[in-house]
Amino acid sequence: MITISAFKWVPDFARGQVRDLRVRWALEEAGLPYRTRLLEQGDQDKAEYRAMQPFGQVPVFEEDGFVLFESGAIVLHIGERSGTLLPKDAGARSRATQWLIAALNSIEPFVMQVAAIDIFYANEDWAKLRRPGAVEFVQRRLSALSQCLGDKPHLDGDRFTAGDLMMTTVLRILKHTDLVTSDRRLAAYIERCTARPAYQRAFDAQIADLKKAA
Amino acid sequence: MITISAFKWVPDFARGQVRDLRVRWALEEAGLPYRTRLLEQGDQDKAEYRAMQPFGQVPVFEEDGFVLFESGAIVLHIGERSGTLLPKDAGARSRATQWLIAALNSIEPFVMQVAAIDIFYANEDWAKLRRPGAVEFVQRRLSALSQCLGDKPHLDGDRFTAGDLMMTTVLRILKHTDLVTSDRRLAAYIERCTARPAYQRAFDAQIADLKKAA
Repeated sequence: MITISAFKWVPDFARGQVRDLRVRWALEEAGLPYRTRLLEQGDQDKAEYRAMQPFGQVPVFEEDGFVLFESGAIVLHIGERSGTLLPKDAGARSRATQWLIAALNSIEPFVMQVAAIDIFYANEDWAKLRRPGAVEFVQRRLSALSQCLGDKPHLDGDRFTAGDLMMTTVLRILKHTDLVTSDRRLAAYIERCTARPAYQRAFDAQIADLKKAA
Repeated sequence: MITISAFKWVPDFARGQVRDLRVRWALEEAGLPYRTRLLEQGDQDKAEYRAMQPFGQVPVFEEDGFVLFESGAIVLHIGERSGTLLPKDAGARSRATQWLIAALNSIEPFVMQVAAIDIFYANEDWAKLRRPGAVEFVQRRLSALSQCLGDKPHLDGDRFTAGDLMMTTVLRILKHTDLVTSDRRLAAYIERCTARPAYQRAFDAQIADLKKAA
């Protein structure tokens, strides 16, 4: 049986955002059942958890003694069992990986800079001074992404892949702003991807686990 | 024949750092010959290049009409042809991917914040105010990484993989500071990985291409 770790409690802004959502979504797309191991506050810093996840993050994926961390790597690992997430054709498969990594390395760091300024550092002087530049940078990246998406329903064309899964979750990090949704194409893209039943089930399951502990 | 894109000229601080190094290194580990397509300044913003690389970054990988971007995805793609980079055993293979993505998503964004402050924004007020916090954050991540590495020669044990390739190039971004090298284990780890003949050939090739244009 697959087990993934998630938090028992998170602040409001993080509900529906924590990274176990990515893995739940991938598992739903692949049709794989799973259970969750819910961490109390502080559990992520205990030696037992750090032995599995050196940075104290969620999720950790466990299955019959096999342990894996990093949501991107777990999504790719699950993708090996899902023709939706990772197409069988070698080229299309590498492009799905390309978009997953583009989400994690060319978009998320800049998205997170703005989100961190808004959520964690809003009252700090450096954050007030830095925000315009950080916004301008992420806008350039989002505009390039939108242009590349064009009229295609998904990043690599007609088919939804692991790349779209990851890009959607990364773009949603900015949902407290209109930086993404002010772009007609990106707004429609997020709507299209999050309308998938697998996404809905994953989202509901994360919220349900958080409510359970409340 | 494999072609990768690289810059004809970069400022001094970027010599030996540009991301085509990662792909050159992977190609050398895999024993695959390649040629370079060197971009003049501004070429990366032209429509023809942006059609292949939406963010105007290097490298782009091309082979017989197949095109791929994102250094992480290209290294994994090359890894499919190299038992060194991606072990055949499914678990070890997923862990190699895990470390590659940890380098790109859990380490590089925080390494780049410090590097960007030092290299691009050193004179800006926000950067002066932010640097101590950015340094503290990256130190926590590096300390967790060092603890996880422990006495192992490589992140997953005895074998060097695509994860070590990526982590090494990410850690090298801070070589203008002692944030990495002040940690005995991480310093030895970088030395061990960059002593590989494939790394040396890749590094020399990047520098040679930059000298060619000078």
